[in-house]
Amino acid sequence: MIIVMEKNASEENIKGVQGKLQSWGFSIHLSQGVEKTIIGAVGEKSHEACNAIEALEGVEKVVTVLTPYKLASREFKKEDTVITIGDVKIGGKEIQVMAGPCAVESREQLLEVARLAKKGGARILRGGAFKPRTSPYSFQGLEEEGLKYLAEAREQTGLLIVSEVIDPRDVELVAKYVDILQVGARNMQNFALLRAVGKANKPVLLKRGISATIEEWIMAGEYILAEGNENVMFCERGIRTFETFTRNTLDLSAVPIIKQLTHLPIIVDPSHGTGKWKLVNAMSKGAIACGADGLIVEMHPEPSEALSDGPQSLKPEKYEELMKELQVVASAVGRSLELGEV
Amino acid sequence: MIIVMEKNASEENIKGVQGKLQSWGFSIHLSQGVEKTIIGAVGEKSHEACNAIEALEGVEKVVTVLTPYKLASREFKKEDTVITIGDVKIGGKEIQVMAGPCAVESREQLLEVARLAKKGGARILRGGAFKPRTSPYSFQGLEEEGLKYLAEAREQTGLLIVSEVIDPRDVELVAKYVDILQVGARNMQNFALLRAVGKANKPVLLKRGISATIEEWIMAGEYILAEGNENVMFCERGIRTFETFTRNTLDLSAVPIIKQLTHLPIIVDPSHGTGKWKLVNAMSKGAIACGADGLIVEMHPEPSEALSDGPQSLKPEKYEELMKELQVVASAVGRSLELGEV
Amino acid sequence: MIIVMEKNASEENIKGVQGKLQSWGFSIHLSQGVEKTIIGAVGEKSHEACNAIEALEGVEKVVTVLTPYKLASREFKKEDTVITIGDVKIGGKEIQVMAGPCAVESREQLLEVARLAKKGGARILRGGAFKPRTSPYSFQGLEEEGLKYLAEAREQTGLLIVSEVIDPRDVELVAKYVDILQVGARNMQNFALLRAVGKANKPVLLKRGISATIEEWIMAGEYILAEGNENVMFCERGIRTFETFTRNTLDLSAVPIIKQLTHLPIIVDPSHGTGKWKLVNAMSKGAIACGADGLIVEMHPEPSEALSDGPQSLKPEKYEELMKELQVVASAVGRSLELGEV
Amino acid sequence: MIIVMEKNASEENIKGVQGKLQSWGFSIHLSQGVEKTIIGAVGEKSHEACNAIEALEGVEKVVTVLTPYKLASREFKKEDTVITIGDVKIGGKEIQVMAGPCAVESREQLLEVARLAKKGGARILRGGAFKPRTSPYSFQGLEEEGLKYLAEAREQTGLLIVSEVIDPRDVELVAKYVDILQVGARNMQNFALLRAVGKANKPVLLKRGISATIEEWIMAGEYILAEGNENVMFCERGIRTFETFTRNTLDLSAVPIIKQLTHLPIIVDPSHGTGKWKLVNAMSKGAIACGADGLIVEMHPEPSEALSDGPQSLKPEKYEELMKELQVVASAVGRSLELGEV
Repeated sequence: MIIVMEKNASEENIKGVQGKLQSWGFSIHLSQGVEKTIIGAVGEKSHEACNAIEALEGVEKVVTVLTPYKLASREFKKEDTVITIGDVKIGGKEIQVMAGPCAVESREQLLEVARLAKKGGARILRGGAFKPRTSPYSFQGLEEEGLKYLAEAREQTGLLIVSEVIDPRDVELVAKYVDILQVGARNMQNFALLRAVGKANKPVLLKRGISATIEEWIMAGEYILAEGNENVMFCERGIRTFETFTRNTLDLSAVPIIKQLTHLPIIVDPSHGTGKWKLVNAMSKGAIACGADGLIVEMHPEPSEALSDGPQSLKPEKYEELMKELQVVASAVGRSLELGEV
Repeated sequence: MIIVMEKNASEENIKGVQGKLQSWGFSIHLSQGVEKTIIGAVGEKSHEACNAIEALEGVEKVVTVLTPYKLASREFKKEDTVITIGDVKIGGKEIQVMAGPCAVESREQLLEVARLAKKGGARILRGGAFKPRTSPYSFQGLEEEGLKYLAEAREQTGLLIVSEVIDPRDVELVAKYVDILQVGARNMQNFALLRAVGKANKPVLLKRGISATIEEWIMAGEYILAEGNENVMFCERGIRTFETFTRNTLDLSAVPIIKQLTHLPIIVDPSHGTGKWKLVNAMSKGAIACGADGLIVEMHPEPSEALSDGPQSLKPEKYEELMKELQVVASAVGRSLELGEV
Repeated sequence: MIIVMEKNASEENIKGVQGKLQSWGFSIHLSQGVEKTIIGAVGEKSHEACNAIEALEGVEKVVTVLTPYKLASREFKKEDTVITIGDVKIGGKEIQVMAGPCAVESREQLLEVARLAKKGGARILRGGAFKPRTSPYSFQGLEEEGLKYLAEAREQTGLLIVSEVIDPRDVELVAKYVDILQVGARNMQNFALLRAVGKANKPVLLKRGISATIEEWIMAGEYILAEGNENVMFCERGIRTFETFTRNTLDLSAVPIIKQLTHLPIIVDPSHGTGKWKLVNAMSKGAIACGADGLIVEMHPEPSEALSDGPQSLKPEKYEELMKELQVVASAVGRSLELGEV
Repeated sequence: MIIVMEKNASEENIKGVQGKLQSWGFSIHLSQGVEKTIIGAVGEKSHEACNAIEALEGVEKVVTVLTPYKLASREFKKEDTVITIGDVKIGGKEIQVMAGPCAVESREQLLEVARLAKKGGARILRGGAFKPRTSPYSFQGLEEEGLKYLAEAREQTGLLIVSEVIDPRDVELVAKYVDILQVGARNMQNFALLRAVGKANKPVLLKRGISATIEEWIMAGEYILAEGNENVMFCERGIRTFETFTRNTLDLSAVPIIKQLTHLPIIVDPSHGTGKWKLVNAMSKGAIACGADGLIVEMHPEPSEALSDGPQSLKPEKYEELMKELQVVASAVGRSLELGEV
């Protein structure tokens, strides 16, 4: 921790900071510049202390030197984490695609989409049973009924299931039916929920909050890891900016950054990331070329019938086209994408 | 709902949109411009339909005409909602100040702060017992023990209590001890929590999410109102922008906007809104001059000992000074601020 | 300057940094933590060196300790700068209001507005003769003809004139007619223009760029000061955020920050800052309560006839009402607003 | 243009809007919903009228239906514009790379970089002679001397030259030496400069402003096209967001959007777009996979000696590695990248 004192900090101010730090067991080094005094402090718990020090008189700013996350960091674990579910590996050489509708709408719709997702080459089926909706008057999902359809689709197709959980009280229920628990963008700092999925025995797909910094996002992952669940994958789904042409701004630079700072897999969601199906093809290829470990893509047999997020859903033929093009891009960056048993 | 068709939309595309709208009972008006066709559609459920229509071929954009919230709107209820708790009124002529520490740290600390808050003129004591923290390794609050100290402080001073709840499972517990339930910025779209506080029999202070639009924020309030709880007050606490000098950018324009669009009270939090105690005085006066119904301000007898948010906490003497200055500003805009029984 | 080395920086990396710094005449202090090495460096030209050091191998980040601006800083000049033009003082106890239309549209319009501005109590008339417009097909201003009308309005009313200059080649021309040169938000980092107004013998109103940090904005002021022009006033006019209800987000916290970091006056533009005349009254009062030295407000006798920015222009009666209310708020914060010779 | 009236708009308000529109020659259609009245208006000059209408009483919002740009639009010109300079084509099947230092620092440095750029396979050399710098005290470029070195480098290597112009008075001078005029992000709305390069007889590389929407950026291009210069290429270089890990957030979705809305080429700058050389490789591959027509990349033989932007410059060996990898990615998306005469 480095403390920069104000230009006009008094002798007393400086002693105040030193005293406080020493009382917490920090070892200290003082550096008196021409204009300002800098105090270097080495010790444990510097993140907790940082705030307190900043409140002391004469302190201009405090710079922390160590990253606040541990278990998620590349320094903690050098090799890539590969999450294995059945014969599907996420974070290895193979690219994984999760495809399906925004929301599970009916048994027929879901089984039809599952068949199409499988045919196109995806290994994982997405579909929301609990939907976080901006309006209390919008369709909120089929809840447990939807989970049952997802489980039935798995039986019929062999696809793995990923679905969102939005309430800590539902984690057990959702975990009973799905293979991957999704934590949505709006809940990225719902710490009660993070703790609950951290205690569940299922991999977690953790979406980036709509205006979360990368550090905050990794810290949210750290909550899950700290509960003992090592199977966390991050999911970039666009951040909120001033641009209005797209629903969100897909931050693909998050892909190499997560790879650099952590050992965990990263998935990209070009559907929410842009909000427009016309941009999904280009951004999917971009994501894979940047180094993403997989994609989560909305696909619907009839987007204009979708109860939510139709404008960003691919039609089945566009999805199949995308999968074929992705295979070529994956191979150009040393990855592979198996198109299943088409 | 207005549908703008693409320049090169075909006759078939236009018929497709019309057909779908008519099947949902919308009445339609077609307007053929030189370059583009516009379809006006009048009917119920236009928000649900909007998404589906946008997914149809040939559609460029869909513009909704009606606001998505009802119960919160100024049109639904013309006169200002005044929330009454004991003899304290929020949203009336009188300005209310909520003061206290970020977190309840100990019985002694809290009772001392309560005494100081009261002395300065606040009618409501703030203090967190459940703390949402970015790091799983940071102090997470005293939980029920903290709530008990808050209740004890109320007994001793007569101040009302506002405290945050972060888990729907804890709403009943927190409501047992406090007078106002706070929903924090990170949980503004935690819909399970919004529903739970909507069912509680206590007023709710709803903080704006760090990058929530004003419409999304009002919609979050609508969740609470829709459960039957009419005592919602909004709290502007700064939004996330590119500026790094302040912790957040306090959006004071939210004050007249909330007053214009809704009938509910609005409180301003200059402590989180700036992250720096040196800015709290100026922004508090600005907030009241803009029309805010109250403030929530962090105050700590010894900010550098605070377990969280020290840098934005006022010392007691600065708080007392502020209260006196606020009284003058309140009166300049036709409001009043009673300084209690000092 | 403080250099934080990466966790796995080699001995050689550390020596590389030290060597480079010493070759530039910095004196150095090395601090070897358990996990990371920190290098403190004291010397001149640290801003130039900072970039180069960050490019060295093994360097994680570089933290500059000194602010990059000098002449603008409060440390350079302790007392407030008061800009005096005739008998008008900007930055002193008195609040100054600049009122008028967005663009000068005709001689009649301008003389009429000038009369109304004066009647309401403003001492300065605003009006654009050179208009920066997003579209090449929009009205671009009356240019020199507009400047002549402004000069005529000054003669008739005694009001001072503020008007924008957008091309370094026009600075001399504009300076011939006006009392204050305005540099608009889009040109805040048009360094050729900043240099040109820095050489002019007229006070400058420097608007904040739409997404300029406060530090960048002060640096833009430093460009003007560095050319010898000491009469710089800052103007907060809203920043670009994700919020779409307002045209911009007016950042009133900039007011106390500019006051704290610099010795120069700060003006607030609630018209551009919100884009909606209905919000101008509240935000004007907020600005003065926060400590602003003045306002620049759009007023138009018939906003719906305005060739630009009608939606944010006050009608004359609303403007007069505002001026009266401002007088009360100004006095509540120890300032004064003289309502001229009404 | 569609006008949505407020819920409580009076009969008189509605007539006011109609009257004004008719006086401007618009043909009108009125649509009376249950809650709100909508007015559709067809006519020329709707962008100019839009502002005025929004200022009328009873108007809630005005929605424009037509895009404000014409010459740049895909509708105006269906086929892709390919800019041809000598035997280099930009916007065709072939990917073009512009490589070189941020600033021209000396004759030796530049000729050395030019040789390396050529060896790696670039066809165009970048290098700044006029540098827009945040601080007036930073190195501002070698000016004409730098341009001469650039011209000499072209003679020696056959590379084309791209360099920035920051002052309308310098356009002629810079155009004498370079093949492509660059307009930087800070000057994207410097309309005097846009007009000046629009009159020059050289292709223009137009960087996106740091917080420009895509529509504003296209409008800036329209300024250049409107002066008769048809050879405009856009350059995405990152936008400003709340994220601090990267210098900017590279918005790769701009690539397919520009391709969809306009007929002009798009180049990506991963160096400024991230600010970190470690991210340049991944983002370059992502850009090409998304459909970019080329890249502009900073490369320096010794980044830590660079007078500006060292931390984002590639070393020559990293640059050569990148070029080889890009060739594979280009071919995976049906493009080609010739590695010159290596």
